Amino acid sequence: MRTLEWDENKQCIRMIDQTKLPEKLVVIEIRTVDDLCEAILNMRVRGAPAIGVAGAFGVALSAVNSDAITTEALMEDVEKDAKRIVSLRPTARNLSWAVERVLNAINDGWSVEGMKRGAIEEAIEIANEDVELNKKLSKNGSKLISDGDTVLTHCNAGALACVEWGTALGVIRWAVLEEGKNVSVIACETRPLNQGSRLTCYELSRDGIDVTLVCDSAAAYLMREGRINSVIVGADRITQDAVFNKIGTYMHSVCAKEHGIPFYVAAPLSTFDFEHYEEDIEIEIRDEKEIKFCDGKRLAPDVPIYNPAFDATPIENVSAIITEKEIIYPPFLIEEYK
Amino acid sequence: MRTLEWDENKQCIRMIDQTKLPEKLVVIEIRTVDDLCEAILNMRVRGAPAIGVAGAFGVALSAVNSDAITTEALMEDVEKDAKRIVSLRPTARNLSWAVERVLNAINDGWSVEGMKRGAIEEAIEIANEDVELNKKLSKNGSKLISDGDTVLTHCNAGALACVEWGTALGVIRWAVLEEGKNVSVIACETRPLNQGSRLTCYELSRDGIDVTLVCDSAAAYLMREGRINSVIVGADRITQDAVFNKIGTYMHSVCAKEHGIPFYVAAPLSTFDFEHYEEDIEIEIRDEKEIKFCDGKRLAPDVPIYNPAFDATPIENVSAIITEKEIIYPPFLIEEYK
Repeated sequence: MRTLEWDENKQCIRMIDQTKLPEKLVVIEIRTVDDLCEAILNMRVRGAPAIGVAGAFGVALSAVNSDAITTEALMEDVEKDAKRIVSLRPTARNLSWAVERVLNAINDGWSVEGMKRGAIEEAIEIANEDVELNKKLSKNGSKLISDGDTVLTHCNAGALACVEWGTALGVIRWAVLEEGKNVSVIACETRPLNQGSRLTCYELSRDGIDVTLVCDSAAAYLMREGRINSVIVGADRITQDAVFNKIGTYMHSVCAKEHGIPFYVAAPLSTFDFEHYEEDIEIEIRDEKEIKFCDGKRLAPDVPIYNPAFDATPIENVSAIITEKEIIYPPFLIEEYK
Repeated sequence: MRTLEWDENKQCIRMIDQTKLPEKLVVIEIRTVDDLCEAILNMRVRGAPAIGVAGAFGVALSAVNSDAITTEALMEDVEKDAKRIVSLRPTARNLSWAVERVLNAINDGWSVEGMKRGAIEEAIEIANEDVELNKKLSKNGSKLISDGDTVLTHCNAGALACVEWGTALGVIRWAVLEEGKNVSVIACETRPLNQGSRLTCYELSRDGIDVTLVCDSAAAYLMREGRINSVIVGADRITQDAVFNKIGTYMHSVCAKEHGIPFYVAAPLSTFDFEHYEEDIEIEIRDEKEIKFCDGKRLAPDVPIYNPAFDATPIENVSAIITEKEIIYPPFLIEEYK
């Protein structure tokens, strides 16, 4: 099934609860904007493209659930919810992008019913597009992967981070499943929430793709041992000067540079932020509990804990950005893709 | 109390069970070589100097427990146990160094009782020396720490890694407690066994030293933000060309170099291995369960997991090695300290 989708009969969102993986595949139904916000905040759904689609469905849900009887009142309801949804994860670009698209679709409606219908259709369209763009991007990126390569990845930029196929893992999936290349993946566990262990290892092994799990801190060691041919990661936001992605991405980029290993970013153009520079972007700081406890077991005494969820990799450290349109190389004139 | 010590009355080793920290301070009594091996393997005692002392006490325990009635038979018993103890953690230099010292002391004895007494005395001497050397080293290293510095450290090279004072954390402890400098510490959690969260945060906060915990993957981000003045780590072995230390040390050295941040190694001369080069040294690969589970909770599906416990940092990445004798600077002519 898809990571998340609109349930036409029940007029709600159905999504995989990613906090339950890899132990159980649990599908939950999200019927209110409150529940959606809880799911995004607690990372039942995560990954920039998937969060974008979740935000789009969230605005649709807001419209569907509204008891407004005028178009103005409906617009007011959805705009309030949209603002709340966008504020949940400030670093990811796709969230505000997708929410904005659904708001525009609602705004184009001529009646309350038409606006609700428009919201659902636009959100479903965004979800369908995501799958299609992922595959185009993956096919493009596969050119950068050679038969026999070992590719290191961080966090989860796979089917579970998107609707169905994936970006960084989509490229690997395409190389292996569509082109029959022999590719091995090194997955970094990705502290503190272990999306690498829990999600990347789960979805790659399910697809029969060779994957080995390591601690984040072992990546540089493997590079030094000559065991990594390239690094591929996703992105939460790409500004003119930096790639924002899961904390640890920057460290991998520095170590890849040290060893002359290509460092690739795979992301749809909707991740691009043409308006801002690195210094403008807020890095989300998450709860210290994520580091202090593991499933209730205390890992640290009561000391201050600093838990940035993302970091910024300067664009100079990136060898190529893989998009659905084409592979973009330095000097990365991203303005041209506006 | 000391991290580990010889109990003269009970003729056994008493040690803090470090796997129980930070939740409980549990002291265990080790009465047999079997139990000592279990404690070293499962990291109830860890840290290169502490493992060295544990190995020394282990050989003493072997001698004490032997029912040999000739000096030759006793020597045979302790040599068998010594071999077994040394094989437990192949990367740490101090273990074989300390075991060798106790074996020599036993060999110097003229009677079975004299040999047993010699073993205990030599092991106690090694433990006492460790405290003394740590403090000399710490006083030397404190010169490298300025008032107001924020120092990043990895793993635990503190009192719990030694007998009482510490190496990397000993330097910080000296700067703060003996010289009154205002120093903040960034402790990396140090996956997979979280010695940074569990032990470094525990012992620094207990001493009232300012410490903030971060994920290993956040270190480079903090360096880029200009929030780190220097990095100090311990070492398990220093060859002519490399420093072996907890996995992740190499990554920090690369990122420190990228940002022009000094990278210091604090270790007693007993850590130096004059006979070997990097390529000769075995990196211990530990059980995949350390990464796959956290306190019984499954973090990853059944995929291959690669869990090297250490890495090698090329000596060119090191700014200075802090020893009990002096601070050694490039080109690190370590032969001179033989």
